[in-house]
Amino acid sequence: MKIGILGTGVVGTTIGKKLIENGHEVKMGSRVAGNENASEGTFADAASFVDLLFNCTSGVGALSALELAGSENLKGKILIDVSNPLDFSKGFPPTLTIVNTDSLAELLQRSFPETKVIKTLNTTNCKVMVDPSLVPGEHDLFISGNDEEAKQQVIALLQKEFGWKNIINLGDISTARGTEQLLPLWVRLYGSLGHGNFNFHVVR
Amino acid sequence: MKIGILGTGVVGTTIGKKLIENGHEVKMGSRVAGNENASEGTFADAASFVDLLFNCTSGVGALSALELAGSENLKGKILIDVSNPLDFSKGFPPTLTIVNTDSLAELLQRSFPETKVIKTLNTTNCKVMVDPSLVPGEHDLFISGNDEEAKQQVIALLQKEFGWKNIINLGDISTARGTEQLLPLWVRLYGSLGHGNFNFHVVR
Repeated sequence: MKIGILGTGVVGTTIGKKLIENGHEVKMGSRVAGNENASEGTFADAASFVDLLFNCTSGVGALSALELAGSENLKGKILIDVSNPLDFSKGFPPTLTIVNTDSLAELLQRSFPETKVIKTLNTTNCKVMVDPSLVPGEHDLFISGNDEEAKQQVIALLQKEFGWKNIINLGDISTARGTEQLLPLWVRLYGSLGHGNFNFHVVR
Repeated sequence: MKIGILGTGVVGTTIGKKLIENGHEVKMGSRVAGNENASEGTFADAASFVDLLFNCTSGVGALSALELAGSENLKGKILIDVSNPLDFSKGFPPTLTIVNTDSLAELLQRSFPETKVIKTLNTTNCKVMVDPSLVPGEHDLFISGNDEEAKQQVIALLQKEFGWKNIINLGDISTARGTEQLLPLWVRLYGSLGHGNFNFHVVR
């Protein structure tokens, strides 16, 4: 499969590396082409090349990254939005730049109506994203999106490529408000536990 | 122990009933005294009578309830804040009236600096609050507060009176931003699972 990754930070490179190991053709996209990664181009290069995209940019830079990728290049494609609208500019704990009555995922979906935005993976750290077995026992991933068929395709990909077993379908893209607003608790647990290899399990 | 409960809705009455069963002297407080409950008085009656208080008012009414209770009556006492600043006035899903850079718990602590505000129980439904065994297996409760000794007293109370086993101390009262902002996910899970007898477990 041809997969594009927008964002060449630690999240993007972790996901990209895993997908390359699994035999996929991966194109990394960043604001400026020609960084250290051999398969790296601009956001537009990454988006035009592929069947499916991961948005691994920083949340605050996500909209402009997608604008640089170009709506024509994103049209009809699945965009897995992994980012969170966290603002670290005022130190720890970060705050959210979009919150409560809106979410970053909804903003992206509104801005690119012909793209199938699926929010997932944003509630775990990137090591756990690509290897859920780092957290022992049962724990859950959440998924939000308007297009049910695209959501099922992403669920299948998360199971097959990363080994996710428990994926909770929360509903349409507005349910991403719930998972993005989980981050303020996540960062406090990170502080309190001293590591990021944890995840939430909805016990019922 | 003499325990005051501010708010005579379903949360307040559930907690009050359990504490009465456990042999405590409970005074329920509401905006207007003299409702159906025999031991019920005004907010000020409930606050002056007791050693420890639960705030079980609706989040949006919490500050005015505590003002009616009176800062002199609340001085030096532990206030267990169970409420969430949810606004249901525009339908489902509710939004938060305080969010992101502040929390209801912090607002209460700022408004009543001589009261020891401890935020807990706000991430489960009221049946689970007083009987965690309704949710099978391991699952967690969170606690936030500035006064470490008061927090330990509340942890002991939650263990003894309600049977909570796993209580995660998140830190100072500002960590309540994390648990209050868990509610947008909670209400979506409630919609998706079809019941409220679930809880979160931080698997690590």
